[in-house]
Amino acid sequence: MFMTLNSFQFSSGTCGFKKTKKPDLAIIYSNIPCTYAGVFTTNQIRAACVDENKALLKKKKKIRAIIVNSGNANACTGEKGVQSVKNTQKIAANLLKVKLDEVLIASTGAIGVQLDMQKMEAGIKSAVPRLNPENFKGAAKAILTTDRFVKSFSMGTKDFKIIGFTKGAGMIHPNMATMLCYLMTDLKMSQSLLQEAVNTAVNISFNNISVDADMSTNDMVIILSNNTSHREVKTSKDPLFLNFQKVLNESCIKLAKQIVLDGEGAQKLIEVTVSGAKTEENAKLIARSIASSNLFKCAIHGSDPNWGRAAAKIGCTNIKVNQNKIDILLNNTSVFRNGNPVAFNKVKLNKEIKKKKGVRVNVNLKLGKKSGTAFGCDLTKEYVNFNSAYFT
Amino acid sequence: MFMTLNSFQFSSGTCGFKKTKKPDLAIIYSNIPCTYAGVFTTNQIRAACVDENKALLKKKKKIRAIIVNSGNANACTGEKGVQSVKNTQKIAANLLKVKLDEVLIASTGAIGVQLDMQKMEAGIKSAVPRLNPENFKGAAKAILTTDRFVKSFSMGTKDFKIIGFTKGAGMIHPNMATMLCYLMTDLKMSQSLLQEAVNTAVNISFNNISVDADMSTNDMVIILSNNTSHREVKTSKDPLFLNFQKVLNESCIKLAKQIVLDGEGAQKLIEVTVSGAKTEENAKLIARSIASSNLFKCAIHGSDPNWGRAAAKIGCTNIKVNQNKIDILLNNTSVFRNGNPVAFNKVKLNKEIKKKKGVRVNVNLKLGKKSGTAFGCDLTKEYVNFNSAYFT
Repeated sequence: MFMTLNSFQFSSGTCGFKKTKKPDLAIIYSNIPCTYAGVFTTNQIRAACVDENKALLKKKKKIRAIIVNSGNANACTGEKGVQSVKNTQKIAANLLKVKLDEVLIASTGAIGVQLDMQKMEAGIKSAVPRLNPENFKGAAKAILTTDRFVKSFSMGTKDFKIIGFTKGAGMIHPNMATMLCYLMTDLKMSQSLLQEAVNTAVNISFNNISVDADMSTNDMVIILSNNTSHREVKTSKDPLFLNFQKVLNESCIKLAKQIVLDGEGAQKLIEVTVSGAKTEENAKLIARSIASSNLFKCAIHGSDPNWGRAAAKIGCTNIKVNQNKIDILLNNTSVFRNGNPVAFNKVKLNKEIKKKKGVRVNVNLKLGKKSGTAFGCDLTKEYVNFNSAYFT
Repeated sequence: MFMTLNSFQFSSGTCGFKKTKKPDLAIIYSNIPCTYAGVFTTNQIRAACVDENKALLKKKKKIRAIIVNSGNANACTGEKGVQSVKNTQKIAANLLKVKLDEVLIASTGAIGVQLDMQKMEAGIKSAVPRLNPENFKGAAKAILTTDRFVKSFSMGTKDFKIIGFTKGAGMIHPNMATMLCYLMTDLKMSQSLLQEAVNTAVNISFNNISVDADMSTNDMVIILSNNTSHREVKTSKDPLFLNFQKVLNESCIKLAKQIVLDGEGAQKLIEVTVSGAKTEENAKLIARSIASSNLFKCAIHGSDPNWGRAAAKIGCTNIKVNQNKIDILLNNTSVFRNGNPVAFNKVKLNKEIKKKKGVRVNVNLKLGKKSGTAFGCDLTKEYVNFNSAYFT
């Protein structure tokens, strides 16, 4: 059952950016100004909306609304693209009766195409009157592109609620916010604490997933708090903050896994955990190296326990390893121990991988005590189809 | 017409490492000791043969023979794998009547499988009696794995000859030697000059290609000189050395392009040139970033002039760029100028890409005067098929 969250309303509309004519506009709106924190793509080729949102974050602005369109990324669109962001803010602010700098903008879709502002205006106009606390799923659906299913959650404790939705599918790679994600809570805290919480959650979830090693121009994770809970968190040591962080982490990991499993054409989740590293960052880097290997992704697609392709990726980063110390397990079956191949039942493991929705790779480097996890998906003919068979 | 090279003989044999029972053993042999230089994979997960060959290079050994087996990489095989390399050297040295440390070893194929030394011995035994200067193509064919065609060349001037062959197909990514390649010449020069020549050639050819961004455990480029030419090169400023370097560069670029075009399932060559960079290395890094983008590779597979996917990859490296200065051309058609999309005839460009075997991407960063090129290939359903549909 979906949980509504005091002050937040949602709506969806259709601008006509998508060839399918499916809904392609989402509005998130709050009756009261919200504390705003976020994480953005680290790609230097960025859409203008990313820069605009970052500027508002820096100014520590309270936020009233987020306008998200899918089907057109408004990236690589130069000065005209910047104007489109400003115009969208203007249209939305007018209709929503909020200030211009209380509106965040997000876009996702084709790169290098100017936004049709007439379509955008019509879409916003049609959506605003339908804002409603219950329209959460409609908004979550409207931001999707090639995603096959809606990815959302809502969780609550006696002291706070968190709800959120996300989209992923293609151009998914770590070291960035990785996709569009909107999180809303009522827990009362400062912007800096909210930022700390979202940084931590993104770092262990969306920053560790890869669908195709391509980094997007538009990605962002945004969290808003309307500060209406009966409790207030004042420091990051407060047990209530720790609990909030725990719930946020779990929610983001759940969403991140859903994104990977809904990677374009993906059929299997690949979960790689590297332990025995000197630092957590080292462990993650090697885990990501494996999770994003085209060859290993293809092997897993064929349910082939071809651990050699994973082994080869361990040595490809700039993290020093000793191949004679390394252990590898595939779905808890030991396949490589102290740098030596282990005899195992290939047919049994093949059948096991075939049956399940996911596969686990565990690597022990035996160089230290830190570990890290990355999530990837298999590479399929459908991925190639998705990304080659349509014409921009 | 193939050119033989005084002192060099070739042979191929069948050990039975390949399920297809096709030839899987090549011998390169020289009647006289050869100066030896080479470049090796930078992957820390390396096959034992790579370490052995590097040790011989360090000792400045003269070389008499190279034994190459395909179908089994003998990588991730621990101490037993090291012994297999030593045993192969022993068997070959005995049969070829050369010293043990005059034999280089190379392997390519499945990772993590121990070499069957009985099969190896039988293969070498059957191949040695058939050594012949004319068996060049047979040897070039025997080292292939999933390659669809033999990649070789021979070139000569009045002062020297160079012949060579290579294999590629999968697990092809820069920052390494990138595949197996054997080059032979007669031009008389020191080991250090020969090493300088091969470093330069690899740097502008094999180090700039990507099929699937996976880096192999076994890759090497080896060059041998039997020093029998009537001319001797003493310094790298000698016009004859410069001419040799030029011929070697051209040959390696030709082979590198053939490797990419024969990438698993590849149908189109993607040639990316980045200019206006501050350093050549910066230009190459960005060119490689584009050439290895799964999304752009898929677009090109569909002949879709989706330059936005290339643009997105420009900002993903740690090289600082200014998106408002960037120009992009696709097959000489301007699609992005000073950070703004340019209107162009999409249908015409789509048809043009469809017709040709390759596509050219030109990026101008307008930050400096250096440029660099990288080669990639499209991503196809056949690639996925190749790498998922067989069982290790």
